[in-house]
Parts: sequence; structure tokens; C-alpha cells
Amino acid sequence: MIQFQCDYNEGAHPAIMKRLMETNMEQTVGYGMDPYCEQAREAIKKACEAPNANVHFLVGGTQTNTTVIQAALKAYQGVICAHTGHINVHETGAIENTGHKVLALPGKDGKITAEQVEKAIKDHFEDGDAEHIVQPGMVYISFPTEIGTIYTKQELTDLSSVCHKYEMPLFVDGARLGYGLTSPSCDITLPELCKLADVFYIGGTKVGAMFGEAVVINCPKLNKDFRYHIKQRGGMLAKGRLLGVQFLTLFTDNLYMQISEHANKMAMKIREAFSAKGCEFLVDSPTNQQFPILSNEMMQKLSKKYLYSPWQKVDENYTAVRFCTSWATKEENVDALIEDIKAL
Amino acid sequence: MIQFQCDYNEGAHPAIMKRLMETNMEQTVGYGMDPYCEQAREAIKKACEAPNANVHFLVGGTQTNTTVIQAALKAYQGVICAHTGHINVHETGAIENTGHKVLALPGKDGKITAEQVEKAIKDHFEDGDAEHIVQPGMVYISFPTEIGTIYTKQELTDLSSVCHKYEMPLFVDGARLGYGLTSPSCDITLPELCKLADVFYIGGTKVGAMFGEAVVINCPKLNKDFRYHIKQRGGMLAKGRLLGVQFLTLFTDNLYMQISEHANKMAMKIREAFSAKGCEFLVDSPTNQQFPILSNEMMQKLSKKYLYSPWQKVDENYTAVRFCTSWATKEENVDALIEDIKAL
Amino acid sequence: MIQFQCDYNEGAHPAIMKRLMETNMEQTVGYGMDPYCEQAREAIKKACEAPNANVHFLVGGTQTNTTVIQAALKAYQGVICAHTGHINVHETGAIENTGHKVLALPGKDGKITAEQVEKAIKDHFEDGDAEHIVQPGMVYISFPTEIGTIYTKQELTDLSSVCHKYEMPLFVDGARLGYGLTSPSCDITLPELCKLADVFYIGGTKVGAMFGEAVVINCPKLNKDFRYHIKQRGGMLAKGRLLGVQFLTLFTDNLYMQISEHANKMAMKIREAFSAKGCEFLVDSPTNQQFPILSNEMMQKLSKKYLYSPWQKVDENYTAVRFCTSWATKEENVDALIEDIKAL
Amino acid sequence: MIQFQCDYNEGAHPAIMKRLMETNMEQTVGYGMDPYCEQAREAIKKACEAPNANVHFLVGGTQTNTTVIQAALKAYQGVICAHTGHINVHETGAIENTGHKVLALPGKDGKITAEQVEKAIKDHFEDGDAEHIVQPGMVYISFPTEIGTIYTKQELTDLSSVCHKYEMPLFVDGARLGYGLTSPSCDITLPELCKLADVFYIGGTKVGAMFGEAVVINCPKLNKDFRYHIKQRGGMLAKGRLLGVQFLTLFTDNLYMQISEHANKMAMKIREAFSAKGCEFLVDSPTNQQFPILSNEMMQKLSKKYLYSPWQKVDENYTAVRFCTSWATKEENVDALIEDIKAL
Repeated sequence: MIQFQCDYNEGAHPAIMKRLMETNMEQTVGYGMDPYCEQAREAIKKACEAPNANVHFLVGGTQTNTTVIQAALKAYQGVICAHTGHINVHETGAIENTGHKVLALPGKDGKITAEQVEKAIKDHFEDGDAEHIVQPGMVYISFPTEIGTIYTKQELTDLSSVCHKYEMPLFVDGARLGYGLTSPSCDITLPELCKLADVFYIGGTKVGAMFGEAVVINCPKLNKDFRYHIKQRGGMLAKGRLLGVQFLTLFTDNLYMQISEHANKMAMKIREAFSAKGCEFLVDSPTNQQFPILSNEMMQKLSKKYLYSPWQKVDENYTAVRFCTSWATKEENVDALIEDIKAL
Repeated sequence: MIQFQCDYNEGAHPAIMKRLMETNMEQTVGYGMDPYCEQAREAIKKACEAPNANVHFLVGGTQTNTTVIQAALKAYQGVICAHTGHINVHETGAIENTGHKVLALPGKDGKITAEQVEKAIKDHFEDGDAEHIVQPGMVYISFPTEIGTIYTKQELTDLSSVCHKYEMPLFVDGARLGYGLTSPSCDITLPELCKLADVFYIGGTKVGAMFGEAVVINCPKLNKDFRYHIKQRGGMLAKGRLLGVQFLTLFTDNLYMQISEHANKMAMKIREAFSAKGCEFLVDSPTNQQFPILSNEMMQKLSKKYLYSPWQKVDENYTAVRFCTSWATKEENVDALIEDIKAL
Repeated sequence: MIQFQCDYNEGAHPAIMKRLMETNMEQTVGYGMDPYCEQAREAIKKACEAPNANVHFLVGGTQTNTTVIQAALKAYQGVICAHTGHINVHETGAIENTGHKVLALPGKDGKITAEQVEKAIKDHFEDGDAEHIVQPGMVYISFPTEIGTIYTKQELTDLSSVCHKYEMPLFVDGARLGYGLTSPSCDITLPELCKLADVFYIGGTKVGAMFGEAVVINCPKLNKDFRYHIKQRGGMLAKGRLLGVQFLTLFTDNLYMQISEHANKMAMKIREAFSAKGCEFLVDSPTNQQFPILSNEMMQKLSKKYLYSPWQKVDENYTAVRFCTSWATKEENVDALIEDIKAL
Repeated sequence: MIQFQCDYNEGAHPAIMKRLMETNMEQTVGYGMDPYCEQAREAIKKACEAPNANVHFLVGGTQTNTTVIQAALKAYQGVICAHTGHINVHETGAIENTGHKVLALPGKDGKITAEQVEKAIKDHFEDGDAEHIVQPGMVYISFPTEIGTIYTKQELTDLSSVCHKYEMPLFVDGARLGYGLTSPSCDITLPELCKLADVFYIGGTKVGAMFGEAVVINCPKLNKDFRYHIKQRGGMLAKGRLLGVQFLTLFTDNLYMQISEHANKMAMKIREAFSAKGCEFLVDSPTNQQFPILSNEMMQKLSKKYLYSPWQKVDENYTAVRFCTSWATKEENVDALIEDIKAL
């Protein structure tokens, strides 16, 4: 079976594996205080054009989301996000497990707007019973979103303005950040995004690394004692240099962006093939996740050779499904798929 | 500098690196449902002679401890452990962060006894005010302990009996399990330990793996929905097969025990050298951690060439320090150290 | 100002004050183990025709909801309730603070249906990614609901059946239970409700007591060690006999039901007056809370003499407001209000 | 049986009952925003000579401790207290349930010293592994302590200095504050104590009220949004005026101090009687709790007529027990007890 069901089917980019092998028997201190982590932090700050930022490495996405959100919120505060946000639907209540409500707003194409956020905040503070209601304390978005869409620079700027107007950090989940930044539809750069977000992360797990997320914190108050939070939440990897080596490799010679771009190209080819076949899409995604709506018959045929994710039933005969590409997607597999789509 | 300050200075055993390379571009499903995890589970159950056990793979120790303990306890229960227990002193309050008190008992050489545990349990239930006091709900020990000592088979049998008498799970933190089981002083086997513990883990991070802990659960009630707990606590690795490949390698051809034995041999050589020099020890450890008591002058001399951990000040002139060996310790480094000890 | 804005404007029913005075200098043991609590428990069990039930007294509603829900759920579980449910909107995230997600379903007139609940449960367990999603572990409803409506016997029977089919407790928040049970529209008795709910509470704070909620638990598993939960959540009143005296008085000579009926009668008079004036209502409430939709002009006039709660803006000119009656509402105040409504 | 086993055996001081009766049918707004709470706040601030303090009313001690501590600490912080501190031993892990470790120091006579506290703080911050250890974030003491002793003005001044040196709030649990301040051994006044503590509470439950604790917060940062915390922790009493009326009465005409003094006088009489009989004491308590060490025979005889608390077994034949007096203790009962002590 050829697998398109998610973007973490393979191991790590060969350049990473090579560096892990080369450094394998070196001795370093633990917990992210080694020279590789140090260099990786510098490389990331340079790529972000943010010399004063702080960079921390964690292992996975749920861990990163809970650590950042717990660090940012007071006990009576919650985090605003889209209904479809990962923290609201796909982390087994990890945020609530830290004691905080997810304040879900109805998203459009997986995105929430500055207007929505401002209304939610104002509604809270203007309520005579505000003390009886969870106070919004942070705004969480993902870039790209769960369904592959991306915010424009203007949308991000507006969200950032609202957050700062109400002294609330803006947190950008970048589990698939590379696929967003290298999308042909993207009009924002990494340094620009870094300026707008108070905290965000650069996803490694889905973009070339074995595992790992690099959290960039621009807000000194949030950064204070952040390593205590990481340790307490179980995110401080003993052999931290594994994260350092991986991110240093990804941020050497623009590798992170190059491999992201590859995934998007592969995704566009698949999109065009489904489109040419007359398929509609659940959403117009310009990144590595594509959501064509397939008939039962199409699904049956493709299932013989490919793994993909059923996403949402449209009606009895049609289902929106997800095909993912990644840094590791082989063009020959995509071409095979395209042939099979044509033959549907 | 030659590093003896901990047992996670290097990457992974070459056999693991080789398998990770070989399997790197294979496609597998995520979250530990892949064939490598499946095979690793079978290999571990076989090594434990426990066909009905359940095996789960997590990334690190603190994560594993919080996940197991949160899964086992009711809100008003706490976990009994030695004062020196890792969960009591070295996890930034991760257990309390899950809502549970650590009920610390004064340990002797890092160990607690069945008598102590029974007294603590009885004291609780016989107290007229029991409802005002945290109820013991689990017993946590580590094997080896934080200071390298190991429980005898009899001691473990007694602890297990007390736990079962009071219907309380016995949890063995095996972050360094291999170093315990292959110690010349150890009188218990892996299958025997598996029979006595309701849940324990086989540490990978400190014993040959890049990272990873294999949790073995013998208690069906505790195993129910355990994967929900793993996901909620951020421990469900997307590319779960990385854990599968590593543990499968460690449990092929007895590799786990072989490399553990090597570490112990290296530790014994260091012990003898310090002993021959007339040094006393903080504790008589038969495993990979050695705690010689050094004079300030000795420390100063050794610090020029070696990293080790200061552990506990004995008086103004003497300090107990820790030298760790591991699966990766090179005999030539040990021999160099021994020469330098002799020359002190 | 005459106050109709909530149902806790006054102290306690005079019969309760009398008993508190009479017993004031008696000496009793603490924490609810005194004879008054014992007698109150018996009186409640008798009224419920549930000799095997367990009764616990707590101080307030939020405290009761968090204690019951934390006791019932495992860490990865959440509680199903209506979007408008008190625990979802008006307790400052107290449930999330215990670590659990509130799984809100869109309610109709403040109620959820057995079909909705079953669908939510089935959707969860049939999801291939169930482990990544909060598992439903309890169903919470209120009787009457936040907006005064009540479930029919059939609706409750259906909800109870679904819950038991999926081995999930049904929890009925009865902060205003008396006002529900004595509503002219109510077709269920206290013993019948008690048979359908696994746990529910009889609200005192809003129905004649100074404060206090009597939790009735029919499920032995949930009752186990429940007093530890009460203590841990801060709900174990030192002078517990205050709760015993109050509930014993309320459950002597049918006082609880009599005073509840009074509140409903007063509410019906208010409803009729608004109705006669041509006002529409946000919801057709048969209990002590009435939600007429008033014009801005009407609101302005009534605000000169009465306190009531603005509830929900309907449009620029109209707002749904809440008028509450209670056991303490004086008929002369209601009559004055009715005259003023007529004069609008 | 005459009860001396605790200081909450009776209801409330008659002056309080009288005011509750007089105000019973008045209508007020809820949640502590009524005129009685407002006046009580003013009376307390005046008594404390702290016009800028903030005063909040909660129902009970455990609730107050969890609310204050959760409000003060960040997730990775713990609260320093004496081993014997109420939050460490007698609240069913309520503090841990909020996610925080209690950092217990060995107390002497129930007290901890500024030196101890400073050492604990310095040890933490000077530890190279500080991030792996719970960070001290607050100091909790009780006045009087669990065993009736009181801090001197100098001791409190020193503790306060250390706390402020390390920017950590000092929290004084005053569940029995009146009994401390009116002890013949006390050398500090309420305004002086108020200046030294960042937050403390004036216990009502044990000193004349039916229930209730008045929290005084001197630290604006801690006071910010404190009412959200109260609501979330279930401590916001719907009929808040019950607390207002009670504390207003207690702080009118010095009632709080007068009734406290009475309890101490009664306690001193009991102490003298035991002392005259040749009994030793577990601790030299100058307040309303006395801890004579009795022989089994003495205990047997006294148990026929009196309730008291066994506290701590001294040896096979002797046990330290607790006799409590309170605002409600009748001198005739004390005299009867004294006669019976003489007759032992």
C-alpha cells in the first residue's frame, strides 16, 4: 500500500539521519544544554530575524500545546481557538487536563477572524457576570490550519493587533509551518510571522524530523522559567541534543523550506488530478493536505492501492477524504496515484 | 572532557542506529500501531514470560511516571514512595501537577520496606480522620533506585504482597532496569520481577536507546483505555515506530542485557579503583552509578579531565560525587580514569 | 427596589431560622456526622423512597457539580451537557479546572435528548481516532434547566436508558429541583426521578435554605470514598449540622414542596400579566423563572421600581429578561408588579 | 457528654444569630456585593488599619487555602509550610489537587523559622538542577499553629523579610486568629500582623461565626481577578450577605477579640488543672488548644463524661490528647472538668 493518510509515515530526512549517525557517539550534556541545541537555537533565531527570541525544543505537538498554554494562562483563563482547532478536538482533552477551558469559536475554513476574537473578548469583559465565566487569556491558531488553509498576512496582522490590544498572547501552532510558509498562496515570511506571534512553533515531526517542535517565544514574561514548565510536563528530553542536531540540520542551507516546498508541489499535482476528474473539494487548501470529495465507488477503487483518511461524510454517496503529502513523498507514488485517478 | 556525569551522554547503540537507518524510508501507520511496535511488544512479553501483559511505548521517564500514576489513582489518592524517589524530588512536581500527593517515606539506601508501606497504609485506614488525609493508592519504587541500590527478590516479594493485600498496584520505575537486572548482586530475573509488579517499565533512554520507555501492565483494569491517558499526557509519539524499532532491537539477541552488563562491569572497575585509593562510598551500589566520597583536592584534580556529578556535601572537606557508566562507556576512558585515580 | 433578579435574595425560610436558633448552642460533632445530618439523610431517603441511597450535604452548586463530576470521571473523560448548561457557561471553568472537558451539545429550550446523547456517544466510540478525543463519561442535565424548562418523565426515562446502555452515570443538577417537581407541567415525582438518576441533588440555596445542596447517590461505586472527594474539594462544612438542621426542616411536613409551589404560583401570575400585555417569551417556562421579551421602553419603566436580569438581546428594541420568584416572594410585591405591567 | 474535642461544636454567637434573624427577609444582591459585605469589609480594613487592603469572604478553611494558594502560584511552584501544617496533613491533598506540591519543612512546636525558609529557597535556586525541582513560590504558616503555638512579632518579622527578599508572598492561615491575637503570650496586634503578611485570613468558623473566613489581601497582584478564583473553586456563596452580616457583627464593638479572649481564659484554667495534677504537655500552648499527656487510666475516667481528641501516642501507657475551648465554652463545663481532673 502507498500511504497518503498522514504526513508522518516515514522516519527523518536523510540529511538528519546522516548527522545523527555522525554525532551518535559524541558525549554531550543533557536536557537541551548541549552545543547542538545552542547552534540550532541560533540558526532558528537567525531564520526568524529575531535575535532576542527564546527557542526551546520539545518532542511533540500535544506536549507543546499543553506546555505553552499552561505557562501562559492563569487558572481561571481559557484559550480561544477555532472549533476545528487541534487542541479542541484531537488531543483527548489535554488542555482541559491542565485545568483550562478551550473557548471554541465557529471557524470558517478552519480559521477565526480578528473580529470574532475581539467580539468574544469584549463580550466577556462587558458581561456583568464576567467573574462567573471563563476569562479569555490567549488566542490559539494553527498555520496551516487542520484543514490545510492558511491565514493571509493581513489576517494575522489583525489577529495580532486584537491580541495586543487586550494584552493577550497570540499563539501559532506551526506543526506544519513549513507547508504553510512555502505554499504558493502564502504572502507572509517566517520573520514576519515571528513578529506577529507572541509564541509559535516550528514543526519538525511532520516536516523532515524524526520528531521535535521548536518553540519560539517572543514574550519575556512567558519565557520566564519556561524550562520548569517543560520539565514538569514531561517534555524535557534527556538526550536533548537529538533535537538540536535535527533542527540544526533543518535550518542549514534552507533545508526546512526546500523539503516543505516539495510536499506542496506534490499536493498540487494530486489536487489538479482530482480537479481534472471533476471532483469537488471540502476546502480549497493550498498546502500539503488535500480534501477531495469522492464517490463511494472512487473510494473503493483507490483503497485497493492507497491509504488515505476518510474525513467527513458529505452524503450517502460521497465522502470528503484527506490525501497528505510530505517532505518524504516520492514523486513516482504521486504519479501512480494520478494515473489511477485518471482511470477512475 | 570525558563524561561520567550521567548515563545519557551518547546517542543510541549502533545496532539501533543501523535499524533506524534501514527502516527510515519505510511507510508505517502512526501512534504505535505499526508492525515494529507490534513485534517489539511480542518480544518484550516473551522476555517477561508474560503473554497476557500489555506493553506501551512512551518517550521519557517523567512522562511515563505521570501517565501511569494518573491512570492508577483516584483524585483523593496519593502514591507512596521513598523520600529520595525520582517522582518526589526530581520531576518539578509533575505528579502533583496531575493532582496527586507524593506520600514520601524515609528510605534507607533509597529503598522502602514492606513493613513501612504496610504501616503507612494501616495508619491511614485506622485514623478516625482518614477522610481528611490523602489515601494511599499506589506504591512506587525504582529498580535500581536513584542511588544505584537494588531490591532483593525477597524484598520485592514482600512489597508486592503488602500491595496486593491492600489492593493497591505496585509500580516499578525501571528507567535503569537493565543495570539492576544484570548487577552481580541481583537475585531476581525479568520474568520474576514482572510477576511481582502490577506495572513497571523497561528503560530505554538510559540503556541503549535514543529515547523511550516500555511500560508493561499486568493489571487489566489499569490497562483499560491506557492509550487515552498516553495521548492526553502528550506521550503518544506520532512516528511510534521509532520506539518499536528501538525496543525490537534491544530485545533481539539479548542486546538489552548484554549492554547493561557492560555498564556494570565498567562501574565495578571504577569502584575498585576508588576503593583501593581508600575512598569511602555514600552507598554501596552494585550498579552503574557509583558514589565515592572525595576530598576537595581529589575533586579538583579529577575535574580537569572528567565530568561527574557532585551529589551531596559530607563536610567542608569531603563531598559524595556520582560517576555513571552506561552501555556506551568506553573501557579506554575507564582505564584512563583509573590511572588518574591511582595517581591522586 | 423590589428584587426579582434571582432566587436567592433573602435568607432562609423562617422555620429553618427557628430551628437554627433552637439548636444553636447544642454541642455536636463536626463534618456531617451529627444527629441532625443523620435524621435529614433519613428524611430525604424516605421522601425519595430510596432506602439504599446515600445522601451527602454540600454548601453550594458549583462545589457540588465539581465534586460529583470529578468523582465520576476518569482523567480522559468528559461530561456531556447542553450548551446552555450551568457547568458549561456559568462556573468560571470549574469543571475544566478539575481536568475535564465539558462536551456541550446544542440544546433545545435548555434540554438535550436521548437521541443526541446516544449519537454523541456512538460517534465517539465508532471513531477510528477515538483515543485522540475526549471520551464521554457522564451525562449532566439540570431539572429545571437554566431557562426554567423541565424534562418530561418520558424524556428522563429515555436519557436514563441511554446512559445505562453505555454504563455512564446520569447526573441531575437539581439546584431548583423543588420548582421543577411542583410545576403544574411536571409529570414526574421525586421517587421516580430518583430511580432514573444515578446521582442528583436537591437544591437548598434557592429553595428555602440559607445555603446547602443535598446530593443523593444511587450508585455504590460513585459513593465509595465520596467523603474524601468532598473534603478535598473544600465542601466538608465544619459545622455540618447547619446543613442537617436545614434539610431536616425542609423535609419535615412537606415544607420543601410547599414553598416551591408558592414560587411557581407567583411566577404564573407574572407570566399571565406579561402575556396579557401581549409580550412574547424567550421560552415557555413552567417554573419560577420567566423570560418575557420586553421593549426598551418597558424595561426602562419597570427598572424604576424592580430589579430583574437582562438575559438576551433579541434586537435593537427588544430584550428577553428574567423575572425570578422564590419561596420568599411576597404576593404583595407580585401584585404591585402586575399592576405596573398592566400600566405599561 | 460535654464536648471539648474541637472548637466548632456549637452554632454561632448569639449576636450573630440575632442579626441573621433581623436581616433574614431583607432582599440583597448575591455573591458578596451586598451592603453587609461592603460594611464588613470596611470594618475589617479599619480593624487592620489597612485602608488599601482587599477583603474577600469565603466559607471554609480548606476552600480558602486552595483558593489563595492556586491564585498565588505558577504551575511549577510549591508552597513552603511546616510538616505539621494543615495543608500538608489534613486537607486530603487539596493543595496537590490544584497541581502544587506542599514543600514541608520540619517544624518545631508547629512553627518554621526564617532561617529554615531562607535555606530552602537558597538551596533551590543554587541547585544546578533547579529546573527539575519544584520552585518555592509562597510561604504558608498558621497563627496559631495546628498545635496552638504562636509566632512572636520578631519571628513573623523575620519570616516576612525573607519572603520579601525573595519576592514570595507570606500567607498566614488564621483559622484561629482571634485565639492567637488575644493570647496572653501574644506580642503582636492585628494591624502589625496585617503589615507583615501579604495575605491572611481571619477565621470565623472557629471563632464565633456559623462559618466563614475573611481573606485580607495586601498584594494588588494577588488580588487581581481574585473573585474569578473564588468562583472557580466553588467558594462564592450565593447569599454572600450571610458572610457579611456575620463578619460585620464580629467586627462591631470588638466582639471578635472579646470572645476569643474568653476561650483562652477557659483554656488556661484547664491547663492549670492538668498541670496541678502533675501532667506534662505535648507542647506549651498559650491558646485555646491544650495538649496534656494523660495516662490510659486518666483517659478512661475522663471519657465517661467528656469528649476530647486523642492526638499522639507517647508510649504504651501515655497519650497526648487535645482539649479545645472556644468562644462558646461554658465556664460551668470547664469547672466541672477541673473538678474531675482534681479527682483523677
